[in-house]
Amino acid sequence: MYNICSFVSTGVMMIEPRIPKGFRDSLPAQEKTRKHFERLLEGVFESYGFVPIDTPAVEYAEVLLGKGGGETDKQIFRFTDNGGRDVALRFDLTVPLARFVSAHADELRFPFKRYQIAKVFRGEKPQKGRYREFVQCDFDIVGADSAASDCEILSIMARALQTLGIEGFEIRISHRGLLNAFLEKAGLAGAKDGTLRAVDKLGKIGREGVEAELSALGLDEGRIEALFRFIHPRSEAYMDVLDELCSLIGERPPAARRMEEIHAILAAEGIEPLFRFDPSITRGLDYYTGVVFETFLLAMPQIGSVCSGGRYDNLSSLYSKRALPGVGSCVGIDRLIAAAEELGTLQSRAGDVDVAILPSEGTDAASAAAFAAALRREGLACDLYLGSGKTRDRYAYAESKGARLAVLGIEDGLAEVKDLGTRETRKRLTPEMIASMAAKD
Amino acid sequence: MYNICSFVSTGVMMIEPRIPKGFRDSLPAQEKTRKHFERLLEGVFESYGFVPIDTPAVEYAEVLLGKGGGETDKQIFRFTDNGGRDVALRFDLTVPLARFVSAHADELRFPFKRYQIAKVFRGEKPQKGRYREFVQCDFDIVGADSAASDCEILSIMARALQTLGIEGFEIRISHRGLLNAFLEKAGLAGAKDGTLRAVDKLGKIGREGVEAELSALGLDEGRIEALFRFIHPRSEAYMDVLDELCSLIGERPPAARRMEEIHAILAAEGIEPLFRFDPSITRGLDYYTGVVFETFLLAMPQIGSVCSGGRYDNLSSLYSKRALPGVGSCVGIDRLIAAAEELGTLQSRAGDVDVAILPSEGTDAASAAAFAAALRREGLACDLYLGSGKTRDRYAYAESKGARLAVLGIEDGLAEVKDLGTRETRKRLTPEMIASMAAKD
Repeated sequence: MYNICSFVSTGVMMIEPRIPKGFRDSLPAQEKTRKHFERLLEGVFESYGFVPIDTPAVEYAEVLLGKGGGETDKQIFRFTDNGGRDVALRFDLTVPLARFVSAHADELRFPFKRYQIAKVFRGEKPQKGRYREFVQCDFDIVGADSAASDCEILSIMARALQTLGIEGFEIRISHRGLLNAFLEKAGLAGAKDGTLRAVDKLGKIGREGVEAELSALGLDEGRIEALFRFIHPRSEAYMDVLDELCSLIGERPPAARRMEEIHAILAAEGIEPLFRFDPSITRGLDYYTGVVFETFLLAMPQIGSVCSGGRYDNLSSLYSKRALPGVGSCVGIDRLIAAAEELGTLQSRAGDVDVAILPSEGTDAASAAAFAAALRREGLACDLYLGSGKTRDRYAYAESKGARLAVLGIEDGLAEVKDLGTRETRKRLTPEMIASMAAKD
Repeated sequence: MYNICSFVSTGVMMIEPRIPKGFRDSLPAQEKTRKHFERLLEGVFESYGFVPIDTPAVEYAEVLLGKGGGETDKQIFRFTDNGGRDVALRFDLTVPLARFVSAHADELRFPFKRYQIAKVFRGEKPQKGRYREFVQCDFDIVGADSAASDCEILSIMARALQTLGIEGFEIRISHRGLLNAFLEKAGLAGAKDGTLRAVDKLGKIGREGVEAELSALGLDEGRIEALFRFIHPRSEAYMDVLDELCSLIGERPPAARRMEEIHAILAAEGIEPLFRFDPSITRGLDYYTGVVFETFLLAMPQIGSVCSGGRYDNLSSLYSKRALPGVGSCVGIDRLIAAAEELGTLQSRAGDVDVAILPSEGTDAASAAAFAAALRREGLACDLYLGSGKTRDRYAYAESKGARLAVLGIEDGLAEVKDLGTRETRKRLTPEMIASMAAKD
């Protein structure tokens, strides 16, 4: 509907059909699965009253990176547009959400519950399972700071994974305020951010790696030892862990009360067994201020967290004087698909269509198209083969589309139909008769 | 799930929450409509056996622009990434499709029928209804050159618009080969591309504007006159128009045979009345080689074409030696939503949720969350109010969510429920009883 001056007439040399490193195409089978997952997730979000929004993929660099974003951040696709604007591709959906609620505060009703499924872009080094463009699937509540809102996000996480058919997962939660209180008591308030980030890498670089980073931050052996006692408590049950942490801190900070309330709500909902209190969960991002959580598949912990998030109470203060506390989470849809494939739990999807029409040489195109239209009016998904291949190619085509019935020829508006399962053939069928054959399968 | 070093701790100055010119946010009501339209369209595409794919938003500039794309094209978001690559944001989905089928020819089965709904980016001057980022919704058949494949695209266009509830539209079709044959006979083969592009602007700049452009191309008055007789035939009926054009050309070129076959198929499908043979349709894009089509709403012709496309037989030859003829179309989903809103044909959508839980002061968060979970298990969409507003705010919230029932309080697992339509209140209801109330509405 818009025109761009094109180039076909200019080029005769061939161009290699390659794509930039870290990017990828999504082939039909993969894309169908992704769409299926997205629709299931949307259904879950909507059952909790969450509504969709969208934001631009391109934003001002200043908005995405903050005033402090002057230095080039290698992870960002940042460029100057034709109008001389300093812009960048969004690298997550949380920062744009903060910008969005600040810009539209008067048009929204709070608490605002939104979901957004969209592509984000990172310039980081591509590696197995990590791409420079990937889909994020975020859900957040903005404008409420309570255990009830924290728990709503946690409840959706559990429900979302169950709905996707993921079994055997554990959502590990903690609260930034507990670790912060511990660090303050230990006289380490100054090394807070560094410590949080070091602990966040535990899964990737192991205890020794974290210890080395903590040493580099200036923590002595005793304090590192104490910190590990804190993040690896002896207790297992949620409330026991909380008590142990409070005793290590030497008092019951406000965060402990929040974690108690969260426990009560999860228990009332009957989903508490899906959660584990794990104080080694810190999330590296600076903006989290309250609960933080990650989700691991018991059968595949090595793929990392498949659903993570936390509470961030100050993010919107960058753009607005209005205090808009938030809590949210992000489903790693690509990782979940990869995991479901590997675990064999990917629900086998129905074929693309019910019927493939494979017109024989003698069939005229008009009868075939009219018959296809009649089958669609009967509610059947119907693929009309438009190629000129031989019989074998036609059947292979029908099979690749997952069709259970093939129309082999049409005469006087009646079809010869082959059941591709039983290999049985029936003649002179009306569209209605084919619809009832398809319904019986 | 990925970490980006964040900035929250650095900034204290506020940043204006603005977005670049030509971009926009999609608020919930709008985004819900868009998602609804997209799902309806996906259903139509899938009923014809079309499968989804995705391609990167960022591609090599050379791939998108061709070898001839060396000069800066102002309409393209083109930049150098951190790895020094000359890349650009995709400006349509047709060029990436040609690249995709060339790259994956061995993994696909032809004729390949795909749809893709995705954002594209254009640096053009923003104006009413035109944005620098917008969603395209394309469907194409690659690997077939026949009237049957042309007609399948035309059939989907008609079905898609009907499914979206759009009434009163006309699909205008023509064939590049007819105008080309006419221009050749008139000794104007050299001015072909320029003439096509000038005629394409008829709707925007009017007859006088087109005449001026044709003059500038070197056409004399007599030839301009003859050209207008060609693009504005006296006949109305499809086959009469075809005969008139052939008599103006002075012969029946191969394109005429194709247009006859297309007519026969459209008639057999019973959708011929939705189409009009209009030789002034040329499409400006160089890559079209066969049928071309645009769709206009009878009640709102001024918004321009809402669904356009054509046959492009050489596009994949840029990337591959394999000949892969294609035909496809693109639904202007944003224009259709705007038109449906203006025409009042936008189907009124159900509310976000069935039930809003508005816990009274005394209700503890755990009971409310547990009750919400029980309602969802009954299949109800349920929004738990998480704010601390007064009664009036709570009701306004429930109304904004379109809830028909409000839970006002919960005691012993039983709820007090208000029907927000009748204002009637009932007490001590179980989740099951609420589900049957909701079902009755």
